[in-house]
Amino acid sequence: MPHIAIPSQLPGIVGLMATKPQSGHQLSALAEQLLRGDSPLSHGERELIAAYVSSLNGTRFCTSSHSAAAAHTLGGDYPTVEAVKHDLATAPVSEKLRALLRLAGKVQASGLAVTAEDIEAARSLGADDETIHDTVLIAAAFCMFNRYVDGLAAITPEDPALYDKIGEMLAAKGYANLSG
Amino acid sequence: MPHIAIPSQLPGIVGLMATKPQSGHQLSALAEQLLRGDSPLSHGERELIAAYVSSLNGTRFCTSSHSAAAAHTLGGDYPTVEAVKHDLATAPVSEKLRALLRLAGKVQASGLAVTAEDIEAARSLGADDETIHDTVLIAAAFCMFNRYVDGLAAITPEDPALYDKIGEMLAAKGYANLSG
Repeated sequence: MPHIAIPSQLPGIVGLMATKPQSGHQLSALAEQLLRGDSPLSHGERELIAAYVSSLNGTRFCTSSHSAAAAHTLGGDYPTVEAVKHDLATAPVSEKLRALLRLAGKVQASGLAVTAEDIEAARSLGADDETIHDTVLIAAAFCMFNRYVDGLAAITPEDPALYDKIGEMLAAKGYANLSG
Repeated sequence: MPHIAIPSQLPGIVGLMATKPQSGHQLSALAEQLLRGDSPLSHGERELIAAYVSSLNGTRFCTSSHSAAAAHTLGGDYPTVEAVKHDLATAPVSEKLRALLRLAGKVQASGLAVTAEDIEAARSLGADDETIHDTVLIAAAFCMFNRYVDGLAAITPEDPALYDKIGEMLAAKGYANLSG
């Protein structure tokens, strides 16, 4: 049961954002910018970072939604998304993306956990400053979104088919109008 | 040394936001809404939550800036701000604010660390749904801002007098135009 009343009865962060639209609008605009605005990272790479960080934080709603959004953005590739969450070291992604996901994992633990070596590992595989910036900020942002969802015990559906639908919608339409 | 180039040479999150203004504008608008928009929490209470969460995350720039902003918003009351960070159990704040700061501390650790008892403790002292919502979201947001700053090793000045000036400016003018 959620820790506060969710009058809309909408699931996950969408229900929370609808409960206080003043902040909801800001959060959905930020998500749209980070995941679908200008970036050297593709939409699919950014959704993978979101899904990976959410899985590290143990936030079921965000993990399931962004895993589905990543899979739909990557042409239905659920196995790669699952592999990243299950064992990043062996997942079938490029070495550059693996280094960026490792960096995102450091940020999830603590910003202070990031070392010059983590940055150099990504840079040596072709990541430029903007790629590193966007990776760190997206990972940091999901440490906010995840805590917002879990800290208020947002409504969390069980049905995997629902998350597939949410992911399909996010991949097609994005985040800008999520808070209603 | 920062992990990416900061052409403006501006300190802390301000320098990061100026480096990528597309996301910088979204982040400063969010900070303005959370810390100075409509809320049952006062500006000073919200700055205290920001300073407390930043201190738990070990983020020096954010801790110093928001401690100063809290002190200036609370009429120059640095001792209370320092007491909250040093020992929340004995700090001279209301029992309601103490329960909200404890809740914020749970969110800092993990959204999943928040229990029904944490919520009930705040509610029994007069916190309504919006107060609980705003406390959780502000604490979550500083887990993002802090990771953004530390994860990119933002420029962090040493001089305490500079942070007092930053806090005075934030208390007077807010966050809306920080990203330039």
